[in-house]
Amino acid sequence: MMSHCLDIQDDPQNLEQVLSDCKETLKYCVKTAHPRFFNQLSTGLDIIALAGEWLTATANTNMFTYEIAPVFTLMEDIVLTKLREHIGWPNGHGDGIFAPGGAISNLYAVAVARHTKIPDSKVKGMTGQPRLVMFTSEMSHFSIKRAGALLGIGLDNVINIKADDRGRMSVEDLESRIEQALAEGGVPFFVAATAGTTVLGAFDPINDIADVCEKYGLWFHVDGAWGGSALVSPTHKHLLSGVHRVNSMTWNPHKLLGAVLQCSAILIREPGLLEATNSLKADYLFQPDKHYDVSYDTGDKAIQCGRHNDVFKLWLMWRAKGDRGMQIHIDHLMSLSRYLQKKVRQTDGFEFVLENPEFINVCFWYVPKNIRHLPPGKERESELHKVAPRIKARMMEKGSTMVGYQPMGKLPNFFRMINSNPASTYPDIDWLISEIERIGEEI
Amino acid sequence: MMSHCLDIQDDPQNLEQVLSDCKETLKYCVKTAHPRFFNQLSTGLDIIALAGEWLTATANTNMFTYEIAPVFTLMEDIVLTKLREHIGWPNGHGDGIFAPGGAISNLYAVAVARHTKIPDSKVKGMTGQPRLVMFTSEMSHFSIKRAGALLGIGLDNVINIKADDRGRMSVEDLESRIEQALAEGGVPFFVAATAGTTVLGAFDPINDIADVCEKYGLWFHVDGAWGGSALVSPTHKHLLSGVHRVNSMTWNPHKLLGAVLQCSAILIREPGLLEATNSLKADYLFQPDKHYDVSYDTGDKAIQCGRHNDVFKLWLMWRAKGDRGMQIHIDHLMSLSRYLQKKVRQTDGFEFVLENPEFINVCFWYVPKNIRHLPPGKERESELHKVAPRIKARMMEKGSTMVGYQPMGKLPNFFRMINSNPASTYPDIDWLISEIERIGEEI
Repeated sequence: MMSHCLDIQDDPQNLEQVLSDCKETLKYCVKTAHPRFFNQLSTGLDIIALAGEWLTATANTNMFTYEIAPVFTLMEDIVLTKLREHIGWPNGHGDGIFAPGGAISNLYAVAVARHTKIPDSKVKGMTGQPRLVMFTSEMSHFSIKRAGALLGIGLDNVINIKADDRGRMSVEDLESRIEQALAEGGVPFFVAATAGTTVLGAFDPINDIADVCEKYGLWFHVDGAWGGSALVSPTHKHLLSGVHRVNSMTWNPHKLLGAVLQCSAILIREPGLLEATNSLKADYLFQPDKHYDVSYDTGDKAIQCGRHNDVFKLWLMWRAKGDRGMQIHIDHLMSLSRYLQKKVRQTDGFEFVLENPEFINVCFWYVPKNIRHLPPGKERESELHKVAPRIKARMMEKGSTMVGYQPMGKLPNFFRMINSNPASTYPDIDWLISEIERIGEEI
Repeated sequence: MMSHCLDIQDDPQNLEQVLSDCKETLKYCVKTAHPRFFNQLSTGLDIIALAGEWLTATANTNMFTYEIAPVFTLMEDIVLTKLREHIGWPNGHGDGIFAPGGAISNLYAVAVARHTKIPDSKVKGMTGQPRLVMFTSEMSHFSIKRAGALLGIGLDNVINIKADDRGRMSVEDLESRIEQALAEGGVPFFVAATAGTTVLGAFDPINDIADVCEKYGLWFHVDGAWGGSALVSPTHKHLLSGVHRVNSMTWNPHKLLGAVLQCSAILIREPGLLEATNSLKADYLFQPDKHYDVSYDTGDKAIQCGRHNDVFKLWLMWRAKGDRGMQIHIDHLMSLSRYLQKKVRQTDGFEFVLENPEFINVCFWYVPKNIRHLPPGKERESELHKVAPRIKARMMEKGSTMVGYQPMGKLPNFFRMINSNPASTYPDIDWLISEIERIGEEI
């Protein structure tokens, strides 16, 4: 399907052409649900979530008021409560809202923290306010920085905290950078930890960071867009030990829980702050003289006005699987990942970037035979840096599989394998290892 | 379906229960596609757009890179170009992106304008910067103010410009408030006009405002979330005369064009500014050594990271209808609205809030017989204020229809009727008028 074939004409098309357009589109799509698609954090296609999204599209309503989304706003309340229960807030108490993706959820967190620190920033703006400073690991998602840029904090005031050799935030560095910011006249207000970093899948030490946040009176946010879903498994929730102590958390069920994109929640411990931050009381939308309990209206705590119904597919899937099914889902993905680790460990030419990763992410190099003899050093790294992009290009030409790669700091390009599709099997992983070997020796 | 029936259990449910959940959900949903649902700006359900959304969910991909959305990123480019052609930018040149709703699109506009005015605000933050001032009509959507609050401008620096008796921004007041802001040491940088206000459907005088913006060197944004779609009709595009002069425009095809929610675009005249504002060059996502033209990757100009595919349904619908079909769609909705106006004008007890509205919105009071004898004044207004909420409550109890109402300034509650569903017919409008009369005399 060439680009010009996608043009829109003056005249209508008949049904046959519309169907052909749909078929061609599906044909040339990347098959993100394929059991050998390992490229992104969100892969796979849960059939119940898909049915839920189809119903959502058919109902085509807007989440801003109970009035026009009576069932879906109740479901949102139920699912948000369930997510908060998993965080460990008593009776799932707290606040929250579904947002279009983790970046916007993180934006909410920084906005609420800023408002809490300087309530009159909403009215007066940031000009003339104290210089706020926020902290996040060098391994955190870039959306934390982007939120700092958007909200008028400025990238210079988003301090990168060092990560240890496992990719976890250094609590010592955090505390010393807070002290430094204070000494320089800044006003620390916000720390973002990550539960499941994008590349290494690392979990920052939540309890230790919570201690520091309490000591300095800082808002503590955890970006669990990726790793938050470990909470639904009693076996793996220890990865987020201490998470009940945070002030806010981002959690994307469209990643590891397998809900269809988009499905992200921002969860906030203290009720009322979300509305205090965002409320503008537009009387053409939120009439106080409606004949129902308008506390179910969500529009005045949202950054958005119109808001897509992101909850129904998750509600339906979770209800269908039950809590037990969700746990099985997570445990299965962890098993696939453990199996892949074993294969990497046992197969010649494969080298871990991080030994014994604790989560789903498995990062490794494939070292082709012709460079295995090179001693560690610049030449080897320079050669190795070219391998992953070449293998990936060949994978895409063949259309056989997709795995992401990236450099990190001084490390040459490496593969990051993700098992977030429950349809993947152990033989798919065996196959992937041999496919990388095969292509790696051809290039 | 009581709220506790929606609970999620430990154990999985069987398929029968899942189907029953779906049926019950649809049963208790508000039927936004019903030809007698007139409550929101987005109503109706285009069957091709629905099919498009179903395919989108099935493909379940993410718009941040060409790599995993090769077809959809090309479609986005084609549709954004088409929207820009309608704005009148030569060859549809410019930039833009689909955003999750008009509020986020407006946020983009203010962010890009702020970055353009003070490029180092991205790095340095807003503290210590000059006090920026932005201007918008008192009739504009609250998301303009919210963007000001979020971006650190502050609500005090979002100046409400007076509207005339037709709900259009007063250019004289705009100029005098700009002068006032300058005299007070503020730095004006941004004017938001509205093409189709939420309540009255008013169009601000774009050419006159453009003159003022050019005179003072201000970024000129038009929020055409609602009224932008008039551009696809040669008969009605004069409502946005001069729109090619703006720097940016919000346009929500999920409103008047009938694309399934969510579908909103922010369009920007000068290429490169969107990326300059938002770029953070995360190397784990946007690898420069990919084997394709990475200029198709959209992630680094977005506020979001993961991004739902909002374009396919619109592309498919537009391609199916052709440009001619889209024009017929708009012209038909305008005809329905004109017919409703005639009915309001001719029917006893109905009074316009605004005579001869120029767009889809028709705002009116129904004055029950028992208060028609009251002379203009407080008692009449106080009685009239209670009428619309009571009629609406009865409508909702009966489940017969839905029409929005709101107060505005000192005006008592009135109905705002929207014809954005092409499935509505002239008899549906006749019926609505008599239904309001019927209920209005019962209460």
